[in-house]
Amino acid sequence: MVGRIIKPVKGTRDFYPKQQAWQNWLYQKAKTASRAFGYQEYEGPILEPFSLYEAKSSEEIVNKQAFVIPGKGEAQKRLVLRPELTPTLARMVAAKEYELVFPIRWWSWGRFFRYEAPQKGRGREFYQWNIDLLGQNCPNADAEIIAVGVRFLSSLGLTSADVVIKINDRKYLDNKFDLIGISQSKRLAVFRIIDKKDKVKKADFEAMLAEAGLTKLQIKDLNLALKDYDYSQESPWLTELFSSLSDLGISDWAEFDPTIVRGFDYYTDTVFEAQTRNRQDRALFGGGRYQNLVSDVGGKRKITGVGLAVGDMTVYEVLADLERLPALSALSAKILMTVFAEETFRSSLLAADNLRKSGIKLEMYLDYQVPLTKQLAYANKKGFTKALIIGPEEKATQEVTVKDLVSGQQERVKAKDLAAFLKN
Amino acid sequence: MVGRIIKPVKGTRDFYPKQQAWQNWLYQKAKTASRAFGYQEYEGPILEPFSLYEAKSSEEIVNKQAFVIPGKGEAQKRLVLRPELTPTLARMVAAKEYELVFPIRWWSWGRFFRYEAPQKGRGREFYQWNIDLLGQNCPNADAEIIAVGVRFLSSLGLTSADVVIKINDRKYLDNKFDLIGISQSKRLAVFRIIDKKDKVKKADFEAMLAEAGLTKLQIKDLNLALKDYDYSQESPWLTELFSSLSDLGISDWAEFDPTIVRGFDYYTDTVFEAQTRNRQDRALFGGGRYQNLVSDVGGKRKITGVGLAVGDMTVYEVLADLERLPALSALSAKILMTVFAEETFRSSLLAADNLRKSGIKLEMYLDYQVPLTKQLAYANKKGFTKALIIGPEEKATQEVTVKDLVSGQQERVKAKDLAAFLKN
Repeated sequence: MVGRIIKPVKGTRDFYPKQQAWQNWLYQKAKTASRAFGYQEYEGPILEPFSLYEAKSSEEIVNKQAFVIPGKGEAQKRLVLRPELTPTLARMVAAKEYELVFPIRWWSWGRFFRYEAPQKGRGREFYQWNIDLLGQNCPNADAEIIAVGVRFLSSLGLTSADVVIKINDRKYLDNKFDLIGISQSKRLAVFRIIDKKDKVKKADFEAMLAEAGLTKLQIKDLNLALKDYDYSQESPWLTELFSSLSDLGISDWAEFDPTIVRGFDYYTDTVFEAQTRNRQDRALFGGGRYQNLVSDVGGKRKITGVGLAVGDMTVYEVLADLERLPALSALSAKILMTVFAEETFRSSLLAADNLRKSGIKLEMYLDYQVPLTKQLAYANKKGFTKALIIGPEEKATQEVTVKDLVSGQQERVKAKDLAAFLKN
Repeated sequence: MVGRIIKPVKGTRDFYPKQQAWQNWLYQKAKTASRAFGYQEYEGPILEPFSLYEAKSSEEIVNKQAFVIPGKGEAQKRLVLRPELTPTLARMVAAKEYELVFPIRWWSWGRFFRYEAPQKGRGREFYQWNIDLLGQNCPNADAEIIAVGVRFLSSLGLTSADVVIKINDRKYLDNKFDLIGISQSKRLAVFRIIDKKDKVKKADFEAMLAEAGLTKLQIKDLNLALKDYDYSQESPWLTELFSSLSDLGISDWAEFDPTIVRGFDYYTDTVFEAQTRNRQDRALFGGGRYQNLVSDVGGKRKITGVGLAVGDMTVYEVLADLERLPALSALSAKILMTVFAEETFRSSLLAADNLRKSGIKLEMYLDYQVPLTKQLAYANKKGFTKALIIGPEEKATQEVTVKDLVSGQQERVKAKDLAAFLKN
């Protein structure tokens, strides 16, 4: 078959070593922040039953953006490529609800899928860091999750001058709904509309509310409620949460915002979103507290949780915009063992093997028909720092020539001292 | 919704922290072996176009075991959850065939999917370590890939007494086919039948060959060829490969076997398979050389490669059978900062924060209404080694009580010396 090169699927990414080095860097940052607070790593399946997302999650994500695989065999159940992790977490916790020692602190790094139109900062396949604390129903737990998020952002080189974490409480809004007289049956719809508030015009926002059954007066009152930035008399929960953030020394990152509700239906209390201060249309992370998710997937115990999720693509875009992407090397080894000629090939191979056994990472040139100058050019082109040469002379004296590819200088080292020499 | 707990999809796995610790351990082993030889990490998409696997790969895997997602939008192209990585690698290399500096050495760790009946050591979702060397067409490259595989197996605690790597060369068999008079058009079918030889009865094997159009004499000759263990006169390639394995000191792991062909259609030369010596029906890894895969996916340059793939589930089963699974801790932190009372909560929180800034990983108990004895019981149950206590006395003297949960002993440490104390 000769033809055009087969293209990747739109919205997917190829991670060449350079891109993979970035992914690994980001994973390490998430790992370090998670482990500092004692969180344990876990992971779920990528394939989940469709029913897992039907109960709660997000209507838009499940019905419009899920990759659905037709069922096969016995039950013919539809499968979904997971669009998010929290329902999986709830399912896993419910399955061992009488075994696990609570509170549990878990984090995960994995791949997720949404069948939406690819755009800057959004793909059909992406990585997400998820971190959750379950079995502790207090604002201090919410504050800890936010503190882990802040520690992560700081480790990326971001400061509170770059990022703001906007915090709200759905229960606080629920109380407002009580006052305004919005009935329980309309609240899910109203939350979903508030979540879109920043993306639509004021008139459209109000038209959507009217369509959801709100009266003109209710819409007016709701607009006022969404502009009321003083929660202190009404929400002891938020008061304690902000006090805890202050104790943790991260008040300057955090700010109350009554219009934040987040898109997932399972959030019941605290909800929050990290936004860049210069462009608030992009969430670096989002999260919140869910009271009922474990029982929604069949759990018998009342286990509440709080967590956040960070997508890799947004982080990349934000650091790129701010010109703070790290300079990373994608090389595993920076030393090349060259091969002088067929007669010395075995000596070079053995020397390379011995170095590896001493913990030195190195690449071996395998084709002895290629002239040494070409091998050195290859090492330079790849960005290697040293080349090792064993010619007939070195072989005879049990030495190795070490060529520094940066300075161009070279020296002979006794074979038995080579590992120690290279480690310095 | 109250009901039964939603179950995971059959053939998928939930990785609780304990299982995830095993996955991370295995990933580290693959990473260390890969990097020792200078291989760079990369990764591809999980979603690939169906057409990527149509050309080559394995007929059985693509048509019977692939998870296929119906297309959406413009081109309505079917998508596949990748069943293996080599076609993706070929596509990525082809896309940058004039940019990349060859030879390239790449490795990857990722998730793969096969819609087959789940059984011991096989799931519908699994992890695979892939490692490939492209742009070097010589037996020394094949030997290096096998050597990386051996280094990996050794690092798992396996020896050549546990595992044998059976090696063959499809070109060597091709020469036999020439002698036997098996026409080119029948060879792909014959390779596929030989791949199944060990799984079927002799009579069935011969019946399949007859069905593929071989005469009785050809079947007899083929049976003889598959029993001929002397390649030395006929295959300079295999001779050089085994000599290279000998130079690398791993001859005792390797053995020629003319019946090994592997299941992928793209292999053209060396093919190999690591089997446990006590149960040869289970491949720990498989691999081989492919001459045409990059051009099969549209590449213009002639770029050959050799690689191997290891599945996580088989490795687990083998180590479990041999009772050589490692003892791993799933804990991130083993220190608990307790909270004595509401009045001292802030002191505990700040002390925990300071310890984290000094690089100490620890968990903080967030609910000050829980009595200290219950907090200590929690720490013991989780397997923590130390608990830190700041009561009113410690707060007054700026000290912290460090309780050793193993010995039960406790001592007071100055708050400013605590990080250094815990690091020892």
